[in-house]
Formats: sequence, C-alpha cells, structure tokens
Amino acid sequence: MRHFRTDPIDETDVEWLLSMAHRAPSVGLSQPWRFVRVETVELRERLACHVDRQVKEAGKEYDGDQDKLYRSLKLHGLREAPVLFAVYCDDGTETGHHLGAVTMPEARRYSCVMAVHTLWLAAQTRRIGMGWVSIMEPEGVNAMLDIPASWECLGLLCLGRPVSEEDVPELERRGWEQRTDWHSVVVRR
Amino acid sequence: MRHFRTDPIDETDVEWLLSMAHRAPSVGLSQPWRFVRVETVELRERLACHVDRQVKEAGKEYDGDQDKLYRSLKLHGLREAPVLFAVYCDDGTETGHHLGAVTMPEARRYSCVMAVHTLWLAAQTRRIGMGWVSIMEPEGVNAMLDIPASWECLGLLCLGRPVSEEDVPELERRGWEQRTDWHSVVVRR
Repeated sequence: MRHFRTDPIDETDVEWLLSMAHRAPSVGLSQPWRFVRVETVELRERLACHVDRQVKEAGKEYDGDQDKLYRSLKLHGLREAPVLFAVYCDDGTETGHHLGAVTMPEARRYSCVMAVHTLWLAAQTRRIGMGWVSIMEPEGVNAMLDIPASWECLGLLCLGRPVSEEDVPELERRGWEQRTDWHSVVVRR
Repeated sequence: MRHFRTDPIDETDVEWLLSMAHRAPSVGLSQPWRFVRVETVELRERLACHVDRQVKEAGKEYDGDQDKLYRSLKLHGLREAPVLFAVYCDDGTETGHHLGAVTMPEARRYSCVMAVHTLWLAAQTRRIGMGWVSIMEPEGVNAMLDIPASWECLGLLCLGRPVSEEDVPELERRGWEQRTDWHSVVVRR
C-alpha cells in the first residue's frame, strides 16, 4: 500500500498493533523484533529523500515502456502516512538462548518478518493500510536513526488509512506483474 | 509445534494451504516462494538424521540445567508429521522484475516468510499444526533434495494434527524462555 490519507490513526490502535506483532511466533522464543517509531518531521523527510534517491538509482535497470511504468509508480508513502516505523532484528539478543538460530542465524530475521506480517494483518482488520518499503540502503538508514550495531534493518513501515480500498495489488492492476498459478511453485521429491 | 499425530491430513487441505500461501504479499509481486514436498520415506529419514545431528551439535553450547532442558526438548517432528515441505526462495526469479529487491535482495526471502506464515495461520483455522525447523545446514539439505543453485533454503515445515492443542508455546511452558513485554521492543526517534 502506497496511497495514504494523512489523517492520524488512534494511538490506541497503534499500541494494539504493536502488542499483536509481539505475539508472533519466533525462533527459540527469541522475540528479536524491534520497532523504531519515527516521530520527528526532520527524520521523516530525511528518510523520504533517501528512499527517493534509491528509487531513482534502482530505476536505472529499466527502459522503454517498463521505465515509463516504473516512473509512474508511487513506491512509498513516507511523506503522507501518519505512522512510520523502521523495523529491525536484534541479531545480538540473548533472549531464546540462540535456540534454532545457531546454524541458521537468519531464522531470527524471519521471526521479525512474521511480527511485521502479524501487524499487517491486524491492521487490515481495522481498515488501516500498511506499506513495507525496501528500496533503501540499510546502512544509510541506520546512521540516520542511530541504531545499535547488532540490529539488522528489515525496512520501513508506513501505516495509515488507505485513499481507496483495493483487493488487487497496484502492481497487478497497473500491469507490472501478474499473479502466477500456485501449482507452479510446488515441486515434489 | 513439534508433537504430531501420524494420521494423514486431507490432500484437499494441503492444496488449499498452498493456494493460501501463494496469496501472501511479495516484493514487486515476485512470488518467489518454492515449496518442495518431500514424499519418499528415504528422503524423510535422511532429513531427520541430518537434523538430529545438527540438534546435537547446536546443543554443545549449553551446560548444567540448561543442557538438561535442551536435551529433553523435542525439536522436530520430521518422522511423525504426515506432510513435510522444504521451503525455498528463488533468488534468481525474474517475476516482479527485481522491483524492491535491488538494494535489499533479502526482501525476496522476507516475502517467502510471509507465505510460510500465511500457510501457518491458514493451517490453524483447520486445526492443523505446523512446525518450522531451522536447526539444519542448508547446503546439506539442498544436496539431498537436488535444489537449483539460485534457491535459498528457509527451513523445513512439518504439518499435521497436533497431539494436543496448546495456546502457550512449549518453550514458555517448559521454562526455556519467557514472553517479554511489547513495550520493551519499541523505541522512539
């Protein structure tokens, strides 16, 4: 979701969303997700400018009609969405005593993704939209937000009321990509 | 979930779960998840032996009461669960035309996690339990399953009816780790 209304969402809703995210499953019960609420106008604008630059840079690989379509897509709502989080995984956490994360440390980050997805689904039940922005350079964002060295950035989350409620993703409606058949993602051994 | 009944689950349920997983959100609509259904007794046993070895290896970092507790935990249900998948991310997919995955290619893997989580939640609605096993070495598992080089392993998924339905995770019930307060995972900037 990229098209947000600018009116605020209730703080009680934001707190409920965070409490729901915190109920996600996690490897070894490590609960490694960290939500950084971006509250100042200055930081928000710096993040938006950073992503604008990254969007421009990432667009260099397209040309012709695809380039035209890419340029017309709205790829973040960082200036409009009333609530903004940067989401992190604390790779240095001792909670869970490393269970399940010794051979595959990325399992901790996957737990954080489930917290984000839980927040996303919970938001939908209150007609709050979410947009996950991944066109960014983690190092630049970490420096802006003064993030501990052991935290790994998963992206930026925009939250707010959608301008319009749509069942079909914009990338599908606009012809960027089509949904594939689920049978094509299953193989047997 | 680690304690599975061995009775089969309906193939119509398995197909429905895969079709639900395939509706997860994905970066650039890349739909990069791949589900490898493990169907032979031989492969299942090789995977179970592999994970048994990894569990033993990972346990070397514990001692005393923690070691005793670790040894008593059931850490996978690979021999009992009637349905078994290895789940992968196709990092080489052209679907989605790399949108959102140029600066953070891991965004594709995070999309796969949302597909797994969608499958997990859908399973719960039909009283099917899921256990995500991450105590494994991806390279070893990839070789056993003859996986394309561009695919990244996210883990093994066991699915089946739970021996008992529990609201509190076993690691919490058994005292391995406690749930933290959600306020502790939120910071402000």
